[in-house]
Amino acid sequence: MGCKLCGKEEFYKGLCKEHYINYFENLVKKSIKKYSMLKDSEKILVSVSGGKDSHAVAWVLKKLGYDIELFHINLGIKNFSEISLKEVKKLSNILDLPLHVVNLKDITGKTIENVKKKHCSICGITKRYLMNRFGYENGFDVIVTGHNLDDEVSFMINNILNWDIVHLSKHDPVLPAHDKFLKKVKIFYEIEEELILKYALAENIPFTTAECKYRKDAITLRHRMYFNELKKYRENIKLQFLHGYLKHKDIFKVDDNFKFRECEICGMTSAGKICSFCRVWKIKKNFKLQSQI
Amino acid sequence: MGCKLCGKEEFYKGLCKEHYINYFENLVKKSIKKYSMLKDSEKILVSVSGGKDSHAVAWVLKKLGYDIELFHINLGIKNFSEISLKEVKKLSNILDLPLHVVNLKDITGKTIENVKKKHCSICGITKRYLMNRFGYENGFDVIVTGHNLDDEVSFMINNILNWDIVHLSKHDPVLPAHDKFLKKVKIFYEIEEELILKYALAENIPFTTAECKYRKDAITLRHRMYFNELKKYRENIKLQFLHGYLKHKDIFKVDDNFKFRECEICGMTSAGKICSFCRVWKIKKNFKLQSQI
Ligand SMILES: [Zn+2]
Ligand SMILES: [Zn+2]
Ligand SMILES: [Zn+2]
Ligand SMILES: [Zn+2]
Repeated sequence: MGCKLCGKEEFYKGLCKEHYINYFENLVKKSIKKYSMLKDSEKILVSVSGGKDSHAVAWVLKKLGYDIELFHINLGIKNFSEISLKEVKKLSNILDLPLHVVNLKDITGKTIENVKKKHCSICGITKRYLMNRFGYENGFDVIVTGHNLDDEVSFMINNILNWDIVHLSKHDPVLPAHDKFLKKVKIFYEIEEELILKYALAENIPFTTAECKYRKDAITLRHRMYFNELKKYRENIKLQFLHGYLKHKDIFKVDDNFKFRECEICGMTSAGKICSFCRVWKIKKNFKLQSQI
Repeated sequence: MGCKLCGKEEFYKGLCKEHYINYFENLVKKSIKKYSMLKDSEKILVSVSGGKDSHAVAWVLKKLGYDIELFHINLGIKNFSEISLKEVKKLSNILDLPLHVVNLKDITGKTIENVKKKHCSICGITKRYLMNRFGYENGFDVIVTGHNLDDEVSFMINNILNWDIVHLSKHDPVLPAHDKFLKKVKIFYEIEEELILKYALAENIPFTTAECKYRKDAITLRHRMYFNELKKYRENIKLQFLHGYLKHKDIFKVDDNFKFRECEICGMTSAGKICSFCRVWKIKKNFKLQSQI
């Protein structure tokens, strides 16, 4: 069976490579429009990790003509961080896009390797803080990340199992800017991981399949498998679950009168006296966030 | 390693048979007290299916001295229903308790076998209706069912995946009486299936392990496996999830002003003109609900 549109060799989903690429990019365009994710005038920072998802974000946004630059954090995880940086540099060369690299060690004197436990949660705090601060200080309007449909539903179910109402109120495709937080967008919100992988392969996007060694313990991997098993009962279950969430998310509405303040150390927006980044890395005085290449 | 209390041969959970029985019955007593499930004066109808859970309910309530009678529905599922009825009769003999049996075919002219699809959902509607109507017409105060912790969390996650807010508001251990609905109680709300099985074995309670042939397709079986796999990450995850629900369930609060009415055919409490029992079985005029045995 060849491509259902042109008869050429099938690549994926009954389409040849060329028509699949078209199909995928149309999916992304539809999501961007449906959720009013991006404006043409916006200066976009894409946070790239070295993996397929964030690289595909940069790739497709560049092809669609958006004004983007790349941002990468070197977390100092042995082997993994070196490999990731190499692929990020390749991507920036091919796409001819500015790449900003920040070294965690330059700022904190430490790497993720020096952390004793909760690597995934500290890594998350660190990435969110650094990309937001860099984008904020360098005049970007929006940060786009590589989170896909599988990430979204597995995080959501994890938050439900913990009845973490605060985080359950934040599973939107677009988080608007407030205080010193930039707007954040997930252009792959409705797109399954598998489709992104096939797009990256079809387009020969450089990326690494190296997995962070800390990730294997994460319970969210179990949730991802669960959803893939549930697909046998209902093919569209991930998307239906996500759409149901968007319809009902007001039940997780939290106190809107909450006042953010500025972290006493770094001056960035914070819920408490000291922001979670400065807290987990025991930052004593403010630092300049410089990027290299 | 013997029983941690008396040194005799271990049966389960580091306890001998006798001490395990004690431990289990104390768990049930604690739940009954904690959630004010039952009063001594109440006349209790226990809905028994032939399986271990509902039989253990009758067994433990009888031992604890409650005033109970047994109720069973013959659904007319080939082999399964005959085997179930046999075990139910054994139970009623051993416990010396009145048993009321209702035949679905006598009422509707049909059995679950005649249903084309959605067997599990129609079976649920049928059981809930018949036990409630029988209890209501025969002066019972409360219905106790065999739902356990595994049932509860797997139904809950299923309702969450469907964002079924109405049903999500009803996962309580005690549902108070209203209109012609009797009070409903789940005494095994906090107790895992495995513990009930061990209790049934320790006490030589008669029960069948025959599974309804329609059940194997049920997606809730997949949810049960999922929770058992999640225990590897967090031993107490089922109970924590349930307690989190009880703490946060007000977010699922639905319109309290909803007015129930009486089914135009059978006169029982209904959300619409015709109750779901009369609707799915196409009942044209009211019937007398007689039990035999
Ligand atoms: Zn084609
Ligand atoms: Zn700070
Ligand atoms: Zn003992
Ligand atoms: Zn009716």
